[in-house]
Amino acid sequence: MREHFDEELAEIKDDLVELCALTEVAIDRATRALLDTDLTAADRAAELNADIDIRGRELDHRALTLIARQQPVALDLRALIGGMHNIADLRRMGSLAAHIAEVARLHHPEPVVPFELRAIISDMGVAAAAQAAAAREVLRTRDEAAALDLIWVDERTDELLRRLFAATKGDDWLYGAASAVNITLLGRFYERFCDHTVEISRRVIFVITGEFPDE
Amino acid sequence: MREHFDEELAEIKDDLVELCALTEVAIDRATRALLDTDLTAADRAAELNADIDIRGRELDHRALTLIARQQPVALDLRALIGGMHNIADLRRMGSLAAHIAEVARLHHPEPVVPFELRAIISDMGVAAAAQAAAAREVLRTRDEAAALDLIWVDERTDELLRRLFAATKGDDWLYGAASAVNITLLGRFYERFCDHTVEISRRVIFVITGEFPDE
Repeated sequence: MREHFDEELAEIKDDLVELCALTEVAIDRATRALLDTDLTAADRAAELNADIDIRGRELDHRALTLIARQQPVALDLRALIGGMHNIADLRRMGSLAAHIAEVARLHHPEPVVPFELRAIISDMGVAAAAQAAAAREVLRTRDEAAALDLIWVDERTDELLRRLFAATKGDDWLYGAASAVNITLLGRFYERFCDHTVEISRRVIFVITGEFPDE
Repeated sequence: MREHFDEELAEIKDDLVELCALTEVAIDRATRALLDTDLTAADRAAELNADIDIRGRELDHRALTLIARQQPVALDLRALIGGMHNIADLRRMGSLAAHIAEVARLHHPEPVVPFELRAIISDMGVAAAAQAAAAREVLRTRDEAAALDLIWVDERTDELLRRLFAATKGDDWLYGAASAVNITLLGRFYERFCDHTVEISRRVIFVITGEFPDE
């Protein structure tokens, strides 16, 4: 009984790691759709979102069933309940990547990102994919130091977002209100995507220690 | 033992209902801060957010402890795990109300909302507060029909958001890019606030029936 339970628990953890890996690919494709006005990449981001959603729901169900049947306590219980919350974050990350891809699709074949902002959006895309990769490693290793690192890294991403918003609000903004709106939404989608990786890290610390880190 | 468990479960449910009531007040104060350039209302929204956060965390801990100690199954287990997810949504709703209030504060004493958009923002504020109130009733009564109603009501709120975004993107937008950015963020904050009430409703249906409603 216990052996079977440990196996199930390990499988759920592996599938969570895999789900997180899919969000990394999704945000990468979304950024590509945006910067290269690439519809195939936009399609791929949307497909990955659908896939993350279905797999996430199925995984959520397995975690709940395992709690109900095996009545775990302490670390195992925190891992399963924390895992269910992480699934919710990962599903949301998939949606945010799909939102970004959808902005690219809606404006196709026009580029959404003005030339001067390409570098900063590209940096945000790289940062978001790197944070998803780091979250995947945190889920895999349950390493507290790595989880705390990710929380710090997110501060740098926030700084990118401040620069992006400052650009759209400057007096020298040349691209009109509609473009400022798009850039604001895109910035917000990347920011929220990254915020969810921080939530996952905080929750892994909770799973390990039983306590959330200070905000 | 069982009697004590039922009491604890009922208390957690009551506190969840109360937490939801606080989000309703928070979004109302945030809208007032925005439309009346009222700093006291902005302060109140920020305080409520802090309060929701602290209470939410404490409630989350109680729910987890109860699962670990009493090892509930079926409806009770779904109610506790669903409750923990609902707490996460309610905390996020508090943050979103605080974000809205913060936009008002940053621009004080200048009004953030152009005259022509006051009516639509006011409608969104009313809709968001009404959805929080409806979510509170769904949490209290666990009425499936009321939960499904709330999911439908949200479509009307999405329509308000589409009108708001269309205004900022129109050729006749007079207020510049910076203002368009503010309106976009505000619209998005209201939209997300309302989305979380839908999540809560969907989850209450899951608690009652063991199945999520179709999207």
